[in-house]
Amino acid sequence: MHISDLDTPALIIDLDVFEQNLRKVQLYADRHGLRMRPHTKTHKSPDVARQQLALGAAGLTVAKVGEAEVLAGALARTAPFDLLVAFPVIGARKLERLVRVARQTPVTVALDSEAAARPLSDAAQAGGVEIGVLVEIDLGMGRVGVVPGPEAVNLARLIEELPGLRFRGITFYPGQIREPDGEDAPKIPELGRLLHGLLEEFARAGLEVSIVSGGSTPTLYHSHLIKGLNEIRPGTYVFNDLNTVLTGACTLAECAATVLVTVVSAPRHGHAIVDGGSKTFSSDRPNDGTVSFGRVVGSPECVFHKMNEEHGFLDTTRAKREFKVGDRLRIIPNHVCVAVNLHEYAYGVRGETVERNWKVEGRGKLQ
Amino acid sequence: MHISDLDTPALIIDLDVFEQNLRKVQLYADRHGLRMRPHTKTHKSPDVARQQLALGAAGLTVAKVGEAEVLAGALARTAPFDLLVAFPVIGARKLERLVRVARQTPVTVALDSEAAARPLSDAAQAGGVEIGVLVEIDLGMGRVGVVPGPEAVNLARLIEELPGLRFRGITFYPGQIREPDGEDAPKIPELGRLLHGLLEEFARAGLEVSIVSGGSTPTLYHSHLIKGLNEIRPGTYVFNDLNTVLTGACTLAECAATVLVTVVSAPRHGHAIVDGGSKTFSSDRPNDGTVSFGRVVGSPECVFHKMNEEHGFLDTTRAKREFKVGDRLRIIPNHVCVAVNLHEYAYGVRGETVERNWKVEGRGKLQ
Repeated sequence: MHISDLDTPALIIDLDVFEQNLRKVQLYADRHGLRMRPHTKTHKSPDVARQQLALGAAGLTVAKVGEAEVLAGALARTAPFDLLVAFPVIGARKLERLVRVARQTPVTVALDSEAAARPLSDAAQAGGVEIGVLVEIDLGMGRVGVVPGPEAVNLARLIEELPGLRFRGITFYPGQIREPDGEDAPKIPELGRLLHGLLEEFARAGLEVSIVSGGSTPTLYHSHLIKGLNEIRPGTYVFNDLNTVLTGACTLAECAATVLVTVVSAPRHGHAIVDGGSKTFSSDRPNDGTVSFGRVVGSPECVFHKMNEEHGFLDTTRAKREFKVGDRLRIIPNHVCVAVNLHEYAYGVRGETVERNWKVEGRGKLQ
Repeated sequence: MHISDLDTPALIIDLDVFEQNLRKVQLYADRHGLRMRPHTKTHKSPDVARQQLALGAAGLTVAKVGEAEVLAGALARTAPFDLLVAFPVIGARKLERLVRVARQTPVTVALDSEAAARPLSDAAQAGGVEIGVLVEIDLGMGRVGVVPGPEAVNLARLIEELPGLRFRGITFYPGQIREPDGEDAPKIPELGRLLHGLLEEFARAGLEVSIVSGGSTPTLYHSHLIKGLNEIRPGTYVFNDLNTVLTGACTLAECAATVLVTVVSAPRHGHAIVDGGSKTFSSDRPNDGTVSFGRVVGSPECVFHKMNEEHGFLDTTRAKREFKVGDRLRIIPNHVCVAVNLHEYAYGVRGETVERNWKVEGRGKLQ
């Protein structure tokens, strides 16, 4: 199939770029002896997850039990894999569903409270499974997690004691570090110091910390500089996006995902409307505080300045070409993880040929 | 089923409020002799569309051919209905799909260019169907549409001449009017004057304008004041949301949709994390320029100040209650149309009982 045969808007993945992205980060992890456990929230596809495992990923990460069900259902029968649910699982029904997943493949959960740990233990016991636990640590992000110190050690000790659970280590997300090569540079060794102190506390308490899982997209290639870290969970790297470019973690040429759109109206000079808006790209804005919703490939002078649900507004005043009804454009989104989640299918292209497509199976698996 | 049996995050529709919303706007339309052709983009559900038709809607509106396929597939066999695709349909494949829909139920398309009209005529002819056309007029929004004047008349005349097409009238979307009861009040009679002038031009040209379709959510209850208007296409009114409250078109008590979430982490006083973020609520912000992503029912002092994809950050410092892991909250979203599009199912509740649920069938039907 040729790319011109696709209806728009369509999520397009440049397979050459995508495959290189997959290899590059796996290679980085291998070189530095880091376990690679990619976060599948970006692609939400068992097909892509299978590729990541084949390349050497030691496991997979999801945010939701619904996503875990999709992955386990598609992959576990042929080869069980180490599955991390990087989100506290709260609620009796959801715990029952998690236990069913844990019968298919080994499951580990990240959590930060006794209130999350005790019902998990009860559910694991009732279901006759063992569930791994990572204690979520707040190393400065201020989102979830216990602060480094006695509270973290006590929670780990509780988990060791609770039947049905296995304490495997700790996890953190340094989302507060946006520019590790810029003004946030001093925060990288600071993370290492915090981590070192915490690991010493765990050691003194006689707790074995097998997994130290951390990192974020901006800090991805600094992971080996964070002493003690032994596992990374990158997600966005598979496709990358404009916000990843802004953090310095990839180049524009490494952005594999674009949305193919059609100009549906161009009623006056300098103004074009394309058939994708907030239900196609998401309303996520650039990290740098500007208001722009994507970059037109080949015409970066266009300003994608406004969106309604199904309309994208392009200011084409400075563009070096004319835009007329029926023209097709490819636009790189600001935040690919939320954009992908709006699409039923992704279309993998090589050049102008649609070589494969995959369903975004985990789309909207919110629960 | 009791509401506490639902996994979170879940899209909850208060059925009493929802049903009253449906009746209220139909009654308004009936009272003023306006044809009611609700835009189904908000609910994306054939079940809800069926209710709207049963209450007296003269037809239905969609934005996408994919949504048209869903509605026609579910509803047209038992009773064909007048279906408006309020978006230019561009591209050969998409036109073929539109023609298939037009074989199931009468279809009208809104468009604003010869470049959209000619291929539509070709496709209608080739498919042996007649497709209605509304000429999209730009009455100040600056999005799509031809400006009032000779260009609009010429496009209508062309459509009358093109085989396979039937000129039915005009359509406009006055999205530039945000506060019709406030500073935008003078724009309502101004719209009427523009419309009157345009309709006179059409009359002089001998063109019969059967449908004058317009209005937006903010201007909904001003529609009868816009002289010449005879059809409204409200969408958001079925559920309403915080942005509708801000425009004055509904009250908080008329917001039928909430997202049920669970507190999954509350690591320190004044801070709670719930299990819904930008993949659950969308990143749409309030109209008033503030940064807030929803209103916690019963605890409006909470500030929903930040989101990641799956994390909602609540500042609970001023709240009159404590929030602990496992607590469930209901949050009214800023923009319900994009929030609904993120959910697989909507759960209709009466009091604490889940009385019905429906699949958001049109979710992600982007093409």
